[in-house]
Amino acid sequence: MNGYRDLRVALLGSGSVGAQVARLILENGDELAARIGARLTLAGIAVRNLDAKRDVDLPRELFTTDAERLVQGSDIVIELMGGIEPARTLILQALEGGADVVTANKALIAAHGRELTDAADQVGAQLLYEASVAAAIPILRPLRESLAGDHITRVMGIVNGSTNYILDRMDRFGESTESAMRLASDLGFLEADPTLDVEGFDAAQKATILASIAFHTEVPDSAVYREGITGVTLDQIEAAKSAGFVVKLLAVAERLNAADGTEGVSVRVYPALIPREHPLAAVHEGKNAVFVEAESAGELMFYGAGAGGKETASAVLGDLVSVARRHVIGGPGIPGSTHAELPVLPIGEVLTAYQIMLEVRDEPGVLARIAGILSAHGVSAASVEQNISAGAEGSALLTIGTHEAREANLAETVEELRNDAAVSQVLSVIRLEGRA
Amino acid sequence: MNGYRDLRVALLGSGSVGAQVARLILENGDELAARIGARLTLAGIAVRNLDAKRDVDLPRELFTTDAERLVQGSDIVIELMGGIEPARTLILQALEGGADVVTANKALIAAHGRELTDAADQVGAQLLYEASVAAAIPILRPLRESLAGDHITRVMGIVNGSTNYILDRMDRFGESTESAMRLASDLGFLEADPTLDVEGFDAAQKATILASIAFHTEVPDSAVYREGITGVTLDQIEAAKSAGFVVKLLAVAERLNAADGTEGVSVRVYPALIPREHPLAAVHEGKNAVFVEAESAGELMFYGAGAGGKETASAVLGDLVSVARRHVIGGPGIPGSTHAELPVLPIGEVLTAYQIMLEVRDEPGVLARIAGILSAHGVSAASVEQNISAGAEGSALLTIGTHEAREANLAETVEELRNDAAVSQVLSVIRLEGRA
Repeated sequence: MNGYRDLRVALLGSGSVGAQVARLILENGDELAARIGARLTLAGIAVRNLDAKRDVDLPRELFTTDAERLVQGSDIVIELMGGIEPARTLILQALEGGADVVTANKALIAAHGRELTDAADQVGAQLLYEASVAAAIPILRPLRESLAGDHITRVMGIVNGSTNYILDRMDRFGESTESAMRLASDLGFLEADPTLDVEGFDAAQKATILASIAFHTEVPDSAVYREGITGVTLDQIEAAKSAGFVVKLLAVAERLNAADGTEGVSVRVYPALIPREHPLAAVHEGKNAVFVEAESAGELMFYGAGAGGKETASAVLGDLVSVARRHVIGGPGIPGSTHAELPVLPIGEVLTAYQIMLEVRDEPGVLARIAGILSAHGVSAASVEQNISAGAEGSALLTIGTHEAREANLAETVEELRNDAAVSQVLSVIRLEGRA
Repeated sequence: MNGYRDLRVALLGSGSVGAQVARLILENGDELAARIGARLTLAGIAVRNLDAKRDVDLPRELFTTDAERLVQGSDIVIELMGGIEPARTLILQALEGGADVVTANKALIAAHGRELTDAADQVGAQLLYEASVAAAIPILRPLRESLAGDHITRVMGIVNGSTNYILDRMDRFGESTESAMRLASDLGFLEADPTLDVEGFDAAQKATILASIAFHTEVPDSAVYREGITGVTLDQIEAAKSAGFVVKLLAVAERLNAADGTEGVSVRVYPALIPREHPLAAVHEGKNAVFVEAESAGELMFYGAGAGGKETASAVLGDLVSVARRHVIGGPGIPGSTHAELPVLPIGEVLTAYQIMLEVRDEPGVLARIAGILSAHGVSAASVEQNISAGAEGSALLTIGTHEAREANLAETVEELRNDAAVSQVLSVIRLEGRA
């Protein structure tokens, strides 16, 4: 058609995303050719087991178990196998062979992004992975290209759909953690190993990727501070609700000056309170959203589906068209940019605020004593609410919202409160994010 | 530094955006060079009147009144003069001279986008204009690139900040149209000619640009159906509020099949009710947001500041880095894609729903009679609410929400209701968008 040249595309993996990607390439050939200026030929689909693909509605002859051979002689390789190996080796082979690569593999990019990016840069090839974070939502390209002339200061995202689903059920319908989790599991929203979701590992991988692109800095997976949602109680959520907050599992990456002035970045995942009027508070069910703050652009938000075969395939196809266009034009891709190389600062350096709920003895002087503990650590209270009736006999419930302070000081404050004779129990400690 | 080559950048215009762009180029030279692989040299700033720029905090020697000469010999031209001429001629001269062009000029792109894009394609140059729609929000690049492998079915945006500010004040604080408009004017949110905002002309220009990119189709400015917000009353907004809706001025561009099966696009701007739980309902004050529906990606939203010197400069810089990178690599830009060339369908073909408020005679049989008028035009009611006490003596207030129908049929229905003896007054007619 129109004398377009052919580009050979190798597809590695044929799960729910892979099958959609194959279908789109096969069904939308003419339209893709018009957008690219070349025709995409699906050279093959590498799978582990041919028999398992018997009832997939794709031409049988496309399937092969020889991924390595399929990669050889391809112009573009799409890796949708997941996991580290053999995905990593196959991508390296593809890049060395001069192919461009598109992947949705968040675990691989989080762990080996630098190695793969360097390999691509060395041969002037392209490696794109938009689908690895927040599926259908265009976020990596806007961070990398649209904001290329700005200074991103903070990225704060709801990037794990299943934990958002769980917290949203608890918030909106008053469900218990267990009941919401069971429902999420029944609906297939949780990974085979649910700890990847509920302990924040999945969100941490995405935070790594977001941070490395936003700050042009390599962020090792292991440098991400991580707390999951298993400790979040319905009581916390309901207390948050009545105070005008909602609990969300946030992946935060930000530029930060340490106490000693060192410029660095902080990357962390934890459940936190955000004000109801914050745009992230309106992200319900399994949706994802990434809130970005930049010096000139101000506040931006990118919202949409964070999972799903079709949705993820949309992002893969966007990257595919992009690398194919560049393949036609020739010349090297945009180099992976890690020129800043800022240090990743420990969680103790982060400036944040705490909401602390205590059960205290209902006696004169207790409030002054607690205020003294805060101020000894340089922490000041933004709000203190006392609720006598809610506590046990002879005790009171105290909810303290702090001003922003270094995490290390806040943690020490909580530790001292926990050991103080006036405090019968530390009921809840949760961070506050997104306040104006 | 590092043996980078120089790229000569000509800046045309030095208003609030231009001054910020110049400042960012001058202040962030090293960082931009690292991201681009070349150093940007600000060759000059063309202004109409040198004296007017005396107190601008930029080197005096950069200013010139000879825009044409500045354009000659530049590698990249940034046009921020606004208006049609001389901007159009200067951009054409720049492109013919082999320069790449970045512009924020929505009026120019809406009216002459095709001519300029063709001129760029002919010489293999690039023309980018992210800042022309929704300022800081990355929306054109995601539509063009991230969703390049998807089918966009609908784009629905709040793309005019001042009308959103006015409607938001009315909705949240019960202010009258006049009072909210005066406040917007006092705060400098309205254009010098406020009809550009309140009559929807500004939003229509942006709708044209969004549609042409989303649907690869040329949409003439004149083909956009347009209604402003001057007819929106506080009564309408309060009635909407109590029914769970909010009134927003929407720019809608969608793929559509006409009644006779013709495939086309519809592009329109009007105030409409959207459900409170719709993500666009949470867009407050002068913020902008664009809600996108695509076949694979599903629903996406892009949110942020829709105006402001710094914010717009962020988008201009993003485009600047992008064209500069490509200038370094060589080879043509991504051609402007209008390969689909779908017809723009008239408003009568649009499928939408109406909310109609009537004052009717409070007599037996009136409801049946009105239902008969609806069904004679193939329109069916989704909800009917009668409120006797609210009407004048002997009359009742009727609020009808229709199911989706062709706009032509809905308009005929309203016309017949207006002329019916049972109807004393058509109090309000407003469209409904964004229902699940």
